[in-house]
Amino acid sequence: MVSYQDIAQAHKRISSGILRSSCLMSNTLSKMTGADVYVKYENMQFTASFKERGALNKLLCLRSGTIAKGVVTASAGNHAKALAYHANRLSIPAQVVMPHSTPNIKVEDTQRYGASVILEGENYDEASVFAHNLAKRENQHYVHAFDDEDIIAGQGSIAIEMLEQIPDLDYLVVQIGGGGMIAGMSVAAKHLKPTIKIVGVQSRTFPAMYQSLHNQKIVCEEGTVAEGIAVKQPGDLTLPIIKQHVDEILLVREHSIEKAVSLFVNIEKTVSEGAGAVGLAALLEHREQFAGKKVGIVLSGGNIDAKILAYILLRDLAQQGRIVRIRILGIDKPGILSEIAALIGDLAGNIIDVEHERIFSKVRVKSITLTVTVEVRNSEHTGKIQKALLNAGYSADLI
Amino acid sequence: MVSYQDIAQAHKRISSGILRSSCLMSNTLSKMTGADVYVKYENMQFTASFKERGALNKLLCLRSGTIAKGVVTASAGNHAKALAYHANRLSIPAQVVMPHSTPNIKVEDTQRYGASVILEGENYDEASVFAHNLAKRENQHYVHAFDDEDIIAGQGSIAIEMLEQIPDLDYLVVQIGGGGMIAGMSVAAKHLKPTIKIVGVQSRTFPAMYQSLHNQKIVCEEGTVAEGIAVKQPGDLTLPIIKQHVDEILLVREHSIEKAVSLFVNIEKTVSEGAGAVGLAALLEHREQFAGKKVGIVLSGGNIDAKILAYILLRDLAQQGRIVRIRILGIDKPGILSEIAALIGDLAGNIIDVEHERIFSKVRVKSITLTVTVEVRNSEHTGKIQKALLNAGYSADLI
Repeated sequence: MVSYQDIAQAHKRISSGILRSSCLMSNTLSKMTGADVYVKYENMQFTASFKERGALNKLLCLRSGTIAKGVVTASAGNHAKALAYHANRLSIPAQVVMPHSTPNIKVEDTQRYGASVILEGENYDEASVFAHNLAKRENQHYVHAFDDEDIIAGQGSIAIEMLEQIPDLDYLVVQIGGGGMIAGMSVAAKHLKPTIKIVGVQSRTFPAMYQSLHNQKIVCEEGTVAEGIAVKQPGDLTLPIIKQHVDEILLVREHSIEKAVSLFVNIEKTVSEGAGAVGLAALLEHREQFAGKKVGIVLSGGNIDAKILAYILLRDLAQQGRIVRIRILGIDKPGILSEIAALIGDLAGNIIDVEHERIFSKVRVKSITLTVTVEVRNSEHTGKIQKALLNAGYSADLI
Repeated sequence: MVSYQDIAQAHKRISSGILRSSCLMSNTLSKMTGADVYVKYENMQFTASFKERGALNKLLCLRSGTIAKGVVTASAGNHAKALAYHANRLSIPAQVVMPHSTPNIKVEDTQRYGASVILEGENYDEASVFAHNLAKRENQHYVHAFDDEDIIAGQGSIAIEMLEQIPDLDYLVVQIGGGGMIAGMSVAAKHLKPTIKIVGVQSRTFPAMYQSLHNQKIVCEEGTVAEGIAVKQPGDLTLPIIKQHVDEILLVREHSIEKAVSLFVNIEKTVSEGAGAVGLAALLEHREQFAGKKVGIVLSGGNIDAKILAYILLRDLAQQGRIVRIRILGIDKPGILSEIAALIGDLAGNIIDVEHERIFSKVRVKSITLTVTVEVRNSEHTGKIQKALLNAGYSADLI
């Protein structure tokens, strides 16, 4: 098992190699959630995630014989980057096995940080089996992403820093994938402050740790935006620690995670990957539980695909009613688009797309259905535009 | 004129009310630009820009009679937010005049920070005239966004902090709008370290300060992404300071500014508005000048519209060849889309849009032009997809 002493020593051991990240109160997120929200910016680590803490601690705990032979892991995510970067810094050979389906950019990042990448297997499980065999064959050390005492101790250092930075926290709200971070953090935090509550968070689509703790069958769905915590099998080491020290696990909707990513960009001007925003998602979705409390959350990583981030921002604007689609029905005649465009433009709506529908429309052949996508200020503004269209003789329905 | 003493005093005066923002080296941006790049994160100020420094200094320098009557400004940008927030903190009444065209969200932000907003005028100039008249009529103090000694002194504090944080900087590369920030920073930096070079940066579309210094007619174009520095008229106070202390002004392309915003998101996991990324744009566009030098840049603000940010990220992916449009010519027959989709899908290209063109195509009526938008890994991947399409008897051109 991992003790507070292990974590305190890990913290000392890694302190010159990692960033002591800021932990700052957010006034605006506090107003929005009703809690006093403190954000630990682990996305500012060099490889943009907290995984460096565990990986570096692990590497610094290896014996010299092991160091010479090098380390192996299987990962297509933040653990791979973290291990690659610190192994390279310490001149320890590192091999990372990734499944063939891994996006090129992740392969290149991990190579750039200094590891050799081996593409093997159709999925993570196959890559992992290959990596374990490789480690055995070449007598190298396999570094698990979370189910390892040195990794757990390294991640626990986040809690030590947060309680130094904000001693009077009532809650730590921490995302759970394999459980390495919350296991380490809960041991450290409960030692330093026995009254603190530790709340874990998982996506409803990937609630493996929640289901394990509640003796339910593990059922996960593909396609979560929080792929960094999409772990189907809780760790053998992490599960019992979590059972002992974590007060509760909350589940959050995918929509809340997307909203939290968008709020980090729009309010805090910072970039979170899906898994990094799960703590904030819990505060948005479970307001009553944290009202008036001092709550620390961990923005655990910033490695989000630029395209996914762009889609999240645009979807959030649509959700807020700042981009709307209006279906307009009228008689097909020259000038109709010009008239409609003028109506909308005069009211300061910004048309960004127009679709004409003639063939499949159910209305008469001389009618036309136009679907217009418009940027507006808010729902009141949309209402004004709809009213103007109605007054001009068109039907105008929001889609 | 503004002296170093004024700036040092301003720094002391405002220090409890503003964030001493981090100034961190970026390894990756350094590799990309060839300089040692240090970023000052002024986007982490509460209202997400450096403007708080000047505004707070100004408010703290007001006499008690003035304070009771309150302050007025005209601004639709970061200056408005900064003044609103700190006036409210200090219980000083503040009125902000904005033109009617101001996006609602900016109006709401400024109100939320505690100012009364008055919507007047068709553009900034008209709002400004109204605000000046209002100030005269109600005997209130007008707070200019940059052409004011206390504002200039407040902004200058950025340079004091940067030289404390990174004493051996060779260059400060600073964006110029009205010139308040670079005026204050150049006075402070040249006093503290006479050998340091101060380089100003403007967008090629809005080079008013550059043109003034080079005795050229001021010619600006609408539509810069760096609207925070889109100032047509350099300040009467800032111009002579810049003439004296700034070594050079560089101009950058809009494209470089967009690229810099995208890099801040993708590399540094931080959100910059267009104007905030102009310093980095200069390092990208004028590499040779800064090669091997220690260069400090100011990420001056993070207030970017979520939609614009999303478009910048997607445009950058297209530019990098990670989203491509392929025009495919074939014989129109049932199953053609299925065949093409299978070809592309089997090569792990992700189709995100398909357009069929029948009516306007110049080819035979039984032919069809499909325009397929595909997410790919890189140009090599695109080449593979094109080759597979050619082998299957289609023509496949990149658009």
